[in-house]
Amino acid sequence: MDHLYSYDSLFRLSADVFLAMGCSVADAELAAQVLVAADMRGIDSHGVARLSGYVRLWEAGRINPRPDIKVVHETPSTAVVDGDAGLGLVVAPWAMNVAVSKAGIAGSGWVSVRNSNHFGIAGYHAMMALRHNMTGIAMTNASALVAPTYSIERMLGTNPIAVAIPAGKQPPFVADFATTTAANGKLEILQRKNADAPLGWVQTQEGEATTDANALKKQGALLPLGSDREHGSHKGYALGSIVDIFSAVFSGAGYGPWAPPFPAYVPMPENMPGKGLGHFFGAMRIDAFRPADEFLEHMDNWIGRFRNAQPAPGHDRVLIPGDPERETEAVRKTEGIPLVASVAEDLAALAVRMKVTFPDALA
Amino acid sequence: MDHLYSYDSLFRLSADVFLAMGCSVADAELAAQVLVAADMRGIDSHGVARLSGYVRLWEAGRINPRPDIKVVHETPSTAVVDGDAGLGLVVAPWAMNVAVSKAGIAGSGWVSVRNSNHFGIAGYHAMMALRHNMTGIAMTNASALVAPTYSIERMLGTNPIAVAIPAGKQPPFVADFATTTAANGKLEILQRKNADAPLGWVQTQEGEATTDANALKKQGALLPLGSDREHGSHKGYALGSIVDIFSAVFSGAGYGPWAPPFPAYVPMPENMPGKGLGHFFGAMRIDAFRPADEFLEHMDNWIGRFRNAQPAPGHDRVLIPGDPERETEAVRKTEGIPLVASVAEDLAALAVRMKVTFPDALA
Repeated sequence: MDHLYSYDSLFRLSADVFLAMGCSVADAELAAQVLVAADMRGIDSHGVARLSGYVRLWEAGRINPRPDIKVVHETPSTAVVDGDAGLGLVVAPWAMNVAVSKAGIAGSGWVSVRNSNHFGIAGYHAMMALRHNMTGIAMTNASALVAPTYSIERMLGTNPIAVAIPAGKQPPFVADFATTTAANGKLEILQRKNADAPLGWVQTQEGEATTDANALKKQGALLPLGSDREHGSHKGYALGSIVDIFSAVFSGAGYGPWAPPFPAYVPMPENMPGKGLGHFFGAMRIDAFRPADEFLEHMDNWIGRFRNAQPAPGHDRVLIPGDPERETEAVRKTEGIPLVASVAEDLAALAVRMKVTFPDALA
Repeated sequence: MDHLYSYDSLFRLSADVFLAMGCSVADAELAAQVLVAADMRGIDSHGVARLSGYVRLWEAGRINPRPDIKVVHETPSTAVVDGDAGLGLVVAPWAMNVAVSKAGIAGSGWVSVRNSNHFGIAGYHAMMALRHNMTGIAMTNASALVAPTYSIERMLGTNPIAVAIPAGKQPPFVADFATTTAANGKLEILQRKNADAPLGWVQTQEGEATTDANALKKQGALLPLGSDREHGSHKGYALGSIVDIFSAVFSGAGYGPWAPPFPAYVPMPENMPGKGLGHFFGAMRIDAFRPADEFLEHMDNWIGRFRNAQPAPGHDRVLIPGDPERETEAVRKTEGIPLVASVAEDLAALAVRMKVTFPDALA
């Protein structure tokens, strides 16, 4: 049975685990904040459910809990950051702050990151720009699970893109999406339920369309956004490629099939052309383009107009990117975060192993 | 019957038509170059087939042949350009040059454009960055033909994104794609053939899935990349929205349903919140991130690795974004550009009307 946990209790658990890994207090709390933000926003696949995975990477010597994160190359509006194999949950906000401070002076800031690890939800990092009255952009490459159009080889990760744009009276526009038809987390939900996947999410090892939610475990591949050539999969493939190149070729990380796998039991690729995972961040001051008050007024108008677009029959409203996550967050803030039983059990065992306290569920 | 025309002859015809509209020699030749680049690259919907459409916009007083294009707002790495209602084919390269020169100093340059018109193929403008050893980005909003997920109202254009990334020995990576499942031009081809469209390209006025290639003429809508919610149309909707906001809210152009329609017979939207169409351009020096030789070597490695990905059964190779257009260009350079009979007839009539010479077809 699923139980509910408070934000504070999962934050504390996560921070304690990161402390036990040897992170500084500041880094452990930052990493916990990024991680649990995913649970709060309903992106459960990227929240505390992954905590054990981070620990296993640390145990395998692939995460450095005390990284010396550095800018290694820069211009007035760009930089490359070396994450020193730190937690992506820590490296990413560090790099996003570089983008924000460059934007403060140059109007925009763009930072490519090498030698990092999984950074949680892209949306968290993009949204960091909002409080500075900036548009934020975040992307990352990831373990290769996706076959390009006309291929059966896993060459790209789910390579998400997040874009957060400030508004005035309206809540901000926040898009955060994998460049595949379906994120891997959605497939895992179907696997747990022994349910079929819709056609167009995955293909078999031979490149055939399939509804087998377990196809990925049988050497099949996730499909780029668009699913097949006729429905634009070459566009999803191009998007995933752009994320890979901006994140990893720009910075000197492992790109394409050389992106380090998240599961610690999967061996690292051989002949790596770069270090670790790569990310890419951008920040643009809204007043770098027009006066801030005008910008915010028109974003409010944009959001209001789209929210009032005529719904299709059977739907009572049209959503703005960010609405579903914001609504989940409002509910979970008051009601707590539900953990499926298997995740709670895994975390309880992890707490024992790491000698930290596993929290009580809410009533 | 289709005939073949040389690049030079279609360039001359286009330049002569723009001159007859009152453009300067430099602008007329630049506009012709951008326009015919689409035909050369096989994107026939955006080439000389649109020349009459530009003329009709000029006749309707919606294109200014002698625009005073200006930077109206700037920071070291950003700018807004006002196109003064000029041809997008001229305004866009002007603005892209601003992005490139800002990138020369600040590492990157980002330019949002208002008060412009249809700019041809996005790829042309993105590729301008390549000769400066920069990555180029180009996007534009367009007449509203696309319904957001769960909506039946046309709120967005096909809003393309182009990204061009330099390589060393390999040809560059050039992605250029509409953020819809299918571009409108592909639908027009099916209409001419009286053929059905695949499910997932368009919906009816009531929001039903349909194979009717004429659905758009019956108040239906194009669908965002992903086609339906289950296949990620909310991601295509988010992408199209990002293009719209970066291009038109950043700059002060007409956004969403207020984007000026390309067909001159369609009345302009009322209560426009901005001026004309909007575009967005970016340029990033490759050495703003790592030494140029390293960058080019790894891009070559990236391209080579992806080109050698294992093909799916029935396919002999995996393509890199830009391959199909480059191959078409090579063929058309030697064999000429085919024009379907209806387009050639329309252009011949246009030539008479504008008092310019219509070229002979190749043998």
